[in-house]
Amino acid sequence: MQVSKLGIASLLCLAGAAMAQSDEPLQPIEPAKVTNQALVDLGAKLFFDPRLSRSGFISCNSCHNLSMGGSDNLKSSIGDRWQQGPINSPTVLNSSLNLAQFWDGRAADLRAQAGGPIANPMEMAFSHELAVDMLQSIPGYVNEFKAVFGDDKLSIDEVTTAIAAFEETLVTPNSRFDKWLKGDKKAITEDELKGYQLFKESGCIACHNGPNVGGNSFQRMGLIEPYQTDNPAEGRFAVTGDDADRFNFKVPTLRNVELTYPYFHDGAADTLSQAVDTMGRLQLGKKFTEEENGLIVGFLKTLTGDQPSFVLPQLPPSSDKTVRPNPFN
Amino acid sequence: MQVSKLGIASLLCLAGAAMAQSDEPLQPIEPAKVTNQALVDLGAKLFFDPRLSRSGFISCNSCHNLSMGGSDNLKSSIGDRWQQGPINSPTVLNSSLNLAQFWDGRAADLRAQAGGPIANPMEMAFSHELAVDMLQSIPGYVNEFKAVFGDDKLSIDEVTTAIAAFEETLVTPNSRFDKWLKGDKKAITEDELKGYQLFKESGCIACHNGPNVGGNSFQRMGLIEPYQTDNPAEGRFAVTGDDADRFNFKVPTLRNVELTYPYFHDGAADTLSQAVDTMGRLQLGKKFTEEENGLIVGFLKTLTGDQPSFVLPQLPPSSDKTVRPNPFN
Ligand code: HEC
Ligand code: HEC
Ligand code: HEC
Ligand code: HEC
Ligand SMILES: [Ca+2]
Ligand SMILES: [Ca+2]
Repeated sequence: MQVSKLGIASLLCLAGAAMAQSDEPLQPIEPAKVTNQALVDLGAKLFFDPRLSRSGFISCNSCHNLSMGGSDNLKSSIGDRWQQGPINSPTVLNSSLNLAQFWDGRAADLRAQAGGPIANPMEMAFSHELAVDMLQSIPGYVNEFKAVFGDDKLSIDEVTTAIAAFEETLVTPNSRFDKWLKGDKKAITEDELKGYQLFKESGCIACHNGPNVGGNSFQRMGLIEPYQTDNPAEGRFAVTGDDADRFNFKVPTLRNVELTYPYFHDGAADTLSQAVDTMGRLQLGKKFTEEENGLIVGFLKTLTGDQPSFVLPQLPPSSDKTVRPNPFN
Repeated sequence: MQVSKLGIASLLCLAGAAMAQSDEPLQPIEPAKVTNQALVDLGAKLFFDPRLSRSGFISCNSCHNLSMGGSDNLKSSIGDRWQQGPINSPTVLNSSLNLAQFWDGRAADLRAQAGGPIANPMEMAFSHELAVDMLQSIPGYVNEFKAVFGDDKLSIDEVTTAIAAFEETLVTPNSRFDKWLKGDKKAITEDELKGYQLFKESGCIACHNGPNVGGNSFQRMGLIEPYQTDNPAEGRFAVTGDDADRFNFKVPTLRNVELTYPYFHDGAADTLSQAVDTMGRLQLGKKFTEEENGLIVGFLKTLTGDQPSFVLPQLPPSSDKTVRPNPFN
């Protein structure tokens, strides 16, 4: 306990240092700068293409639904053959701002991440080779890869590069809170401002800071009081093997957190109010009153930004040579 | 056999009569006239909303993917808990032009149809009551239904009305063939024109005619030669109980048929070339040469029109009161 509290104190110092630089420990999200629209458009198609899965049914968008804040709003995802996923699906919105990908940070960046689900037997259950073969059998894709990458050898690297380029556009600027940060003092209400102040004063800001309001460090879940869960995930320890990292998870972004219920790596908290209550007790040793809880929840809802807005991608049709999916065998 | 051939002959006469009126037995698709954009937008949200299913995972768009020609490109669909559907998923594109909905026409129109999948235990496995409760727990939806329908009592009728209004916009004008029909004689190649002529002369036009190149009658599958399939569907007989209707199916639209593989009610034909070969033999007693087959396939591909183009809908988030889906129990 003593050590843990010291931990928080030093974290708050760090946050304090960050505060000294800008005025606030949170920074606004900047709109994406697209330098290669053709690459992004190709990535969007791949993100929506269920043919990257064994069944022909599951795409990235199945579990990171861009109509619903970039996650699936399920405790744990539904994968190939309706298999239950091991962990809650995090949002892809603003994920480019995270220090690493996945709850345990085992992928360094979006490119490294994007190859994972395609070959994961619990998720899309395909293989990189089959994915490339599939794409190569489709003239529409072959032409598009050629136009974008300037070569004939379509590869999984090109696939993940395109998906990552699309994901980099999935930022959510212009939240009411960001407008407030940029000087529009009427963008949030007085209560929402109180909620923000409470968020800072209580110590939430120690872990949830920076432009993504999180996403920039790994922290112990259950710092003051242990977290009870049936979920076997061990967090960062799975990557480093270091005992000190056991049950450390990447601090999730709180951007668009209104949309990414349920909460925590096990999806155990159905509502934002529950998640705030748990955070207060387990990370800070604080039991918020109902009013305080409501104020913080109110503030968190000001973090919902402009959702990605684009025309639903049209996928190039399979050719006679494309191997047909067979989801039931 | 004799009777069947007579059948085709009389069908061809009917088609001939149609031809006398306009110049061609096929008419172009006209763009949708939207009179109530708010109703259509609400319908689009519902079409994309997986919360209309028990699992929270399956939406109309799962099986009628508007990125892929409005079907799922699977032999039979994947429904709740990965259950295998009984029949191939037809496209929703231009389905408003069909004389009735479903392969056997058991739903009179799109409104009558739209309630079906929500409550079908093989598809979305929800119920109308749960669907309405779900929507009513979401302030974003409540406001939108109120704005559109002007009342407070959100009902399943309003839900299906909105979905049907959205589906009515899913028409695909401006195919190259339609441009040709409208006078642009360069819109299709000489070979494609030959394919069209073969399509007419061979007798395909007897069943696949009108603006939807089908969709306007029920016809026997296997008129000249029986169709071999393991699929137990009995077609129109299931609706009328009339023996003469056994194995009669709604003639599918050939609009966008390039995109709606695999073909037939059992999805047994992987390619357009196979489907054309089967149709020739079974419906007309004709074995097309490879060249003839290629010409007809070439013509059919000119029927791909403008795909629906709209910004991916954003769904209003669940509230704390919304019952959470539990896909694994
Ligand atoms: C079957 C569900 C499923 C599918 C399909 C799926 N994901 Fe995920 N995704 C998850 C889950 C669950 C996690 C968290 C896994 C973990 O942290 O161990 C995740 C994590 C991620 C992350 C990390 C986000 C972060 O902040 O840590 C990104 C990015 C991502 N997925 C993108 C994709 C892309 C791109 C695809 C398609 C190529 C895809 N996902 C397909 C369920 C899915
Ligand atoms: C010591 C670090 C730390 C502090 C302090 C902290 N958090 Fe967290 N927060 C985390 C970590 C780590 C997680 C992920 C835990 C998990 O999923 O198991 C998390 C998760 C959350 C979530 C769920 C996000 C999601 O998408 O699942 C919310 C909401 C949240 N925190 C809000 C707060 C609030 C409000 C406070 C202050 C009362 C706070 N946090 C204090 C580290 C911290
Ligand atoms: C699990 C897969 C699945 C889901 C989910 C699904 N459908 Fe279908 N749909 C089908 C199948 C299969 C058929 C054909 C059934 C038959 O003819 O007996 C069909 C038929 C249709 C038809 C008739 C088209 C025609 O020309 O006959 C329409 C329209 C339609 N669906 C719209 C919808 C809407 C709207 C929803 C959501 C409310 C929906 N579907 C959900 C699989 C699905
Ligand atoms: C006597 C009526 C009739 C004639 C003549 C006919 N068809 Fe069909 N066609 C049908 C019916 C009925 C189906 C649906 C059969 C099924 O799914 O079991 C069908 C299905 C098809 C399909 C598959 C469409 C899909 O989406 O599954 C294609 C392609 C097709 N016909 C093309 C042709 C061509 C080309 C010809 C001429 C060689 C032709 N048809 C002649 C009635 C006919
Ligand atoms: Ca979540
Ligand atoms: Ca089909």
